Amino acid sequence: MAEKKTKEKQPEVKKSSLPVKSNFSEWYNELLLMGEIMDVRYPVKGLYVWFPFGFELRKRTYAIIRELLDKDHKEALFPLLIPETEFMKEAEHIKGFENEVYWVTHGGQNELDVKLALRPTSETAIYPMYKVWVRSHADLPIKIYQIVNTFRYETKHTRPLIRLREITSFKEAHTVHATWDEAADQVKEAVRIYQDFYRRLAIPTIVSKRPDWDKFPGADYTMAVDTLMPDARTLQIGTAHHLGNNFAKTFDIKYEDLNGEQQYAHQTCYGISERSIAALISIHGDDRGLVFPPEVAPVQVVIIPVLFGKSDEIINACRTVADKLREKGLRVTFDETDERPGAKYYRWEMKGVPLRLEIGPRDLKNNVATIVRRDNGSKDTGLLDHIAEEVNKRFELIRENLFNKAQSQLKERMHDCSSLDQVKEKISAGIARIPWCGERECGLAMEEAVGAGILGIPEGEPGKGTGNCPICRKETKNIAIMAKTY
Amino acid sequence: MAEKKTKEKQPEVKKSSLPVKSNFSEWYNELLLMGEIMDVRYPVKGLYVWFPFGFELRKRTYAIIRELLDKDHKEALFPLLIPETEFMKEAEHIKGFENEVYWVTHGGQNELDVKLALRPTSETAIYPMYKVWVRSHADLPIKIYQIVNTFRYETKHTRPLIRLREITSFKEAHTVHATWDEAADQVKEAVRIYQDFYRRLAIPTIVSKRPDWDKFPGADYTMAVDTLMPDARTLQIGTAHHLGNNFAKTFDIKYEDLNGEQQYAHQTCYGISERSIAALISIHGDDRGLVFPPEVAPVQVVIIPVLFGKSDEIINACRTVADKLREKGLRVTFDETDERPGAKYYRWEMKGVPLRLEIGPRDLKNNVATIVRRDNGSKDTGLLDHIAEEVNKRFELIRENLFNKAQSQLKERMHDCSSLDQVKEKISAGIARIPWCGERECGLAMEEAVGAGILGIPEGEPGKGTGNCPICRKETKNIAIMAKTY
Repeated sequence: MAEKKTKEKQPEVKKSSLPVKSNFSEWYNELLLMGEIMDVRYPVKGLYVWFPFGFELRKRTYAIIRELLDKDHKEALFPLLIPETEFMKEAEHIKGFENEVYWVTHGGQNELDVKLALRPTSETAIYPMYKVWVRSHADLPIKIYQIVNTFRYETKHTRPLIRLREITSFKEAHTVHATWDEAADQVKEAVRIYQDFYRRLAIPTIVSKRPDWDKFPGADYTMAVDTLMPDARTLQIGTAHHLGNNFAKTFDIKYEDLNGEQQYAHQTCYGISERSIAALISIHGDDRGLVFPPEVAPVQVVIIPVLFGKSDEIINACRTVADKLREKGLRVTFDETDERPGAKYYRWEMKGVPLRLEIGPRDLKNNVATIVRRDNGSKDTGLLDHIAEEVNKRFELIRENLFNKAQSQLKERMHDCSSLDQVKEKISAGIARIPWCGERECGLAMEEAVGAGILGIPEGEPGKGTGNCPICRKETKNIAIMAKTY
Repeated sequence: MAEKKTKEKQPEVKKSSLPVKSNFSEWYNELLLMGEIMDVRYPVKGLYVWFPFGFELRKRTYAIIRELLDKDHKEALFPLLIPETEFMKEAEHIKGFENEVYWVTHGGQNELDVKLALRPTSETAIYPMYKVWVRSHADLPIKIYQIVNTFRYETKHTRPLIRLREITSFKEAHTVHATWDEAADQVKEAVRIYQDFYRRLAIPTIVSKRPDWDKFPGADYTMAVDTLMPDARTLQIGTAHHLGNNFAKTFDIKYEDLNGEQQYAHQTCYGISERSIAALISIHGDDRGLVFPPEVAPVQVVIIPVLFGKSDEIINACRTVADKLREKGLRVTFDETDERPGAKYYRWEMKGVPLRLEIGPRDLKNNVATIVRRDNGSKDTGLLDHIAEEVNKRFELIRENLFNKAQSQLKERMHDCSSLDQVKEKISAGIARIPWCGERECGLAMEEAVGAGILGIPEGEPGKGTGNCPICRKETKNIAIMAKTY
């Protein structure tokens, strides 16, 4: 049904109607519709519909994060509605969210005694249960996650997958530990899991500790995972928060230690949303549409017969190849429609199918298929007798190429700066690196001068260097990164 | 963490504390907690928490319905929030839901311009999109489903998995067809899918067309799937509605037919919720706890070493068996804790593990494992060399036994009645069969006289017979079923 729709009801949708990617914002919005990821025509601002094709992409993507977490986390499910009495317990947390919370005030015709918040995030839904669950040091650590819809009353410009009023796909993990140090280790582990996840999506990331004024409300500190979007703005695509014992004190989460003493527990939480899919689409896509790493592509291989008149032989060869690949667990479409090959190429390129296999009379004579890669357009042949190996070999090359390309683009668009004027100029083209002494006052002054945020001092190479803080002029070995952000 | 919890923090939880099943209501509530399915201690009425173990059961159960639907349906995802303007379009539908709808009236401190309903079901969220998606006969049929949380402001007594304010696991399918007949076929197909689903859960079902006064608000008719709970009340565990072109007219869903004429589409919708899991737990469970068909059991096999002193040999044999079974894709726990065997038996029986394998010195000498079935307690041995076959053979027997047992119980508790007094008596023990002419007036009078509902005239044997309608005395071949319902 999904494919038919594009053909039937949007006759205006032609190859020419996908804007070029350099026109990023329009390209992005149009691609979500033409690629059948999301329908933006739902009649409420900030709420969108996942098309079946987009939902399939979501399913494949979230299967990876589940696989990574299920090694030592458990999946559970907590209620959406949080009573005002629980929600209002943690003062910092309230301040962070009070302007964004949707409130349910009525059931049927009746006004509710206690208003109910739609969870903007689930600390205040989960921690009253952790209070009941945690008794002894032997109960710890607890590592639980859920994948749920959460809600933010966004007053800013909304954007599908990026800034939403219903975040449909919030993966939030909440862990409980005996000590502060164990919680700190878990934050590191969370960041490592997220890096593995994004590596599988061929998305390069920058990890940094957010400045103190930009941390999660109620946390001791926040680690963030960012990536760079084609319009030179960074997108925060994952965060991990050390909650200290702040929430434990508020929600009275205590355990009995080895000496029989009651101790407050230490907690972390970390989250990822459908922004992961926004990054995936934006970073890999091109002027012809979607481009997917094979692991998450809803259709991994499309087979197109090249016919001159009818040829049962070619049709049968295509079917055999399709069967062979499906046996190996691959997701294959054999496009038998009687459209021109060009129209088929166009459609499947738009849908991001990593490999196109064409089989015509000459191919058949040579016992090969012509294989065209979506990521770089390269074309060669593969032996039909070993077609699954031929396909899998190219899948690996595609994933590598997508990652390397994205990684070099990110590096190219990191600019070393020594003055705030330079930062101001460079953030239109990417990320600016600038020495920062690390002091709050200097950081806030830098942000104000530039009109953009400090993401933090990134881990690894990008955070290393020497220079002088542009505000206090102290020499420092900390390099901060600044960027326009989503 | 889940297992530890039971041990650590509920020292009061002892074998004796699960009420007997004949005391159904208390048994059910306690079992959900002791079996770690749901935590009922969330601080809002009608909202519950899925423990990780319960969530695993949910995942396995919904994997079956997904498998059955994915053959020709597509999964998608529509927003939770429905603007009042859309929600209020279909008059019948509003009447059916207006007393049960939660309303979001505020975002942050602001009152919203248009109130937003939390979906009680998604017709009014999905059909505005179908209006946009459906253009031509070639777009049809559309068969889409989603698995989402829905909300009902229940004023009656709530009960976990059965009567909820947040239905966390509503699988709703929504189809669009050219003609009324095609939609009618789809309703039949939906019922068939649900019967397959419940057969896999070893749950016997009764299918009937609901009386006209009990159909879905806005439907032409409703087919319902019921089962019988241990307390002699029936539980509606699936419905399929023929919507005619009622919603198509309201939401302006039209297609161009082969002659180029605009026609209203015909629709169906059908749903299943976590009541499927309530039925699963209630029907198969016993005085010792949960009993699961192997396909959905979170743990399928538990291996317990029977040790007299330390024995590396036995531990190694257990490990080898566990590895062998895992290789075959089975979900296996090797319980190496140093508890007494009795405590282990108790725990894993409570958790519904279909097979317990014990390996002691004598077993090892004979190269066998002692195999104990959870469903009937039977005990025999299986050769270690063919342990996977031994296990799978018993899985099949367990599923069959569970279904047959439940099926005979259902049959035993169907009572033929010829008077309403008899019906009144028999519905305390099960389902009453009574002739009914099929007329609305007679049906309503029967319900009033008995103080219970007519489920409908069931398909197959239970709906066949002859007798006189107890109200108008006309002879009829229709047998209706009446029961106390959840």
